[in-house]
Amino acid sequence: MAAPRPPVTDRPALDASVAAVRTAVRRLLTAARAEGHLDGGDLAVAVSGGADSLALAAGAQHVAASAGLRLHGLVVDHGLQAGSAEVARRAAEQLAGLGLHRVRVLPVEVTGPGGPEAAARRARYAALRSALPTPDALVLLGHTRDDQAETVLLGLGRGSGPRSIAGMRPLDPPLARPLLGVSRATTEAACAALGLVPWSDPHNADPTFTRVRLRTEALPLLEDVLNHGVADALARTAAQLREDCDALDALADDLFAEATRGDTLDVAVLAGAPAALRRRALRGWLRGLGVRQLTDAQLRSVDALVGEWRGQGGVWLPGGLVARRAHGRLCVDPTES
Amino acid sequence: MAAPRPPVTDRPALDASVAAVRTAVRRLLTAARAEGHLDGGDLAVAVSGGADSLALAAGAQHVAASAGLRLHGLVVDHGLQAGSAEVARRAAEQLAGLGLHRVRVLPVEVTGPGGPEAAARRARYAALRSALPTPDALVLLGHTRDDQAETVLLGLGRGSGPRSIAGMRPLDPPLARPLLGVSRATTEAACAALGLVPWSDPHNADPTFTRVRLRTEALPLLEDVLNHGVADALARTAAQLREDCDALDALADDLFAEATRGDTLDVAVLAGAPAALRRRALRGWLRGLGVRQLTDAQLRSVDALVGEWRGQGGVWLPGGLVARRAHGRLCVDPTES
Repeated sequence: MAAPRPPVTDRPALDASVAAVRTAVRRLLTAARAEGHLDGGDLAVAVSGGADSLALAAGAQHVAASAGLRLHGLVVDHGLQAGSAEVARRAAEQLAGLGLHRVRVLPVEVTGPGGPEAAARRARYAALRSALPTPDALVLLGHTRDDQAETVLLGLGRGSGPRSIAGMRPLDPPLARPLLGVSRATTEAACAALGLVPWSDPHNADPTFTRVRLRTEALPLLEDVLNHGVADALARTAAQLREDCDALDALADDLFAEATRGDTLDVAVLAGAPAALRRRALRGWLRGLGVRQLTDAQLRSVDALVGEWRGQGGVWLPGGLVARRAHGRLCVDPTES
Repeated sequence: MAAPRPPVTDRPALDASVAAVRTAVRRLLTAARAEGHLDGGDLAVAVSGGADSLALAAGAQHVAASAGLRLHGLVVDHGLQAGSAEVARRAAEQLAGLGLHRVRVLPVEVTGPGGPEAAARRARYAALRSALPTPDALVLLGHTRDDQAETVLLGLGRGSGPRSIAGMRPLDPPLARPLLGVSRATTEAACAALGLVPWSDPHNADPTFTRVRLRTEALPLLEDVLNHGVADALARTAAQLREDCDALDALADDLFAEATRGDTLDVAVLAGAPAALRRRALRGWLRGLGVRQLTDAQLRSVDALVGEWRGQGGVWLPGGLVARRAHGRLCVDPTES
């Protein structure tokens, strides 16, 4: 008996990883259109030459072509490693080979405070924003589900609250991240299926970077201890946290507007609100009055002027300021006054 | 020249770890009183014989004595390990030695679904609730900041949303957890300073338990990679998440009440609310109608009947039910109807 033959088709079967990347891009673009983006017909993709952004560029070019969009390739050359110009040139060639509408290499100078990772990110985003083909275009970034999981763990380590573990947004115009639900392994498989040879950034294996140790040590151990699916679980929780934080921020803005009396706040309005809204409103108020680097303990002390009032004195704040309660109002003054 | 002599005092200096435990107990009791608890004068503490609960019992006895409260010791014997009755007897002796008002050993039978850890927890909490000295008494539990960090990581691994990473509550009557901000190392130091010899549960070193591997492998690695303070950061984020979730749940209850029309919901009322409130209200509505084990994808499909309405059909739900939109209302019917 002859073995069953595969069905005859006009074209080769689509690789599952290539399909996953295309589907993710299509979804993001549909969501972006629903929010009024992409009307101009131009779209950009930022490419490092690594597997994530290369697979993204290939998927985006396929989707853009069928949707009648012009895809612009942007390759940032950070100039941080020997041969970076050559890496950028090669990535640009690969993009041209994919048939992108236009490809540009953007050399940047990485300087300023906050460590090399933060400085490189700042320089990259500034270059991408200034290279947008049109002011209302979006630029696609190749962050994957694994990047999202690392970001959530970094935020957990900081302990600076729910927003810090809510991760990156899929759509944060002009930035757009279609692959936040796609694994790094899928982008690598997609490149392999498409015959694209990605560049391996040596920084991605350098354990002096916290992110590299999270990727190569902490996440694999958590996957093992927690029976797998951790990256997916982190990404799912992050998505729900973003919705929660957005809702609370919007409601806190309403509360703030309702409680505002010039530069002061009406205690009676604040007192009736849940703690989570009250503290957000207080934080926004203090920030607007120039208070920077407020600690959680300081914020709670200011909140106690509302919720645990027993005639206590003012709360000292950074920058030589003090928050006080008087005549049913909260106000901020210089300490010397 | 003679070295300066230490000041003469009536009593030895108080060990910092013993003071930290006492302060934590005092704070919890103050918060509990503010919420109307402890009026009866009776308070219980659950003790396994381990360092956490033993240090807690010692601290609680000190605070209770000076506050005029009667402290009852409750030792649960799970009967899961050879010699467990002897361990319980010894813990009870230690509590009697601390001067507690009354000490009881509660033998329980660990049975039922969900694995040995879950079954033991169910049996323990049931025994503690039924052994409360008075119906309105609180029972103190020895969970530390390290337990809280493990709980948050377990919740992250499940990926079932913000509430699952919000950790344990300090006050969840009749349960109270004064040590959620105190490290396990502090309870161990407190026991040593007080001359109390804690029991070492062999289960606490058994790597077949997920919690043990989180404690002995994952958290130390995260501490190393993220430059320390991870347990503290997890506990701090969990506290903020509890406030956020409480606020969102309360606001979603309001939205649900406003949208309810018999067994149906008014789409127009839901449509104006933020997604985070809408989905919570929908989840509560479906649960009230007997829908169990709702997945996130199903909930989002029901939500799309509100937010992305284009005349789509019903959403199939567990238990042979289907959610539909008709005439500006959401309703749930059996699929065969």
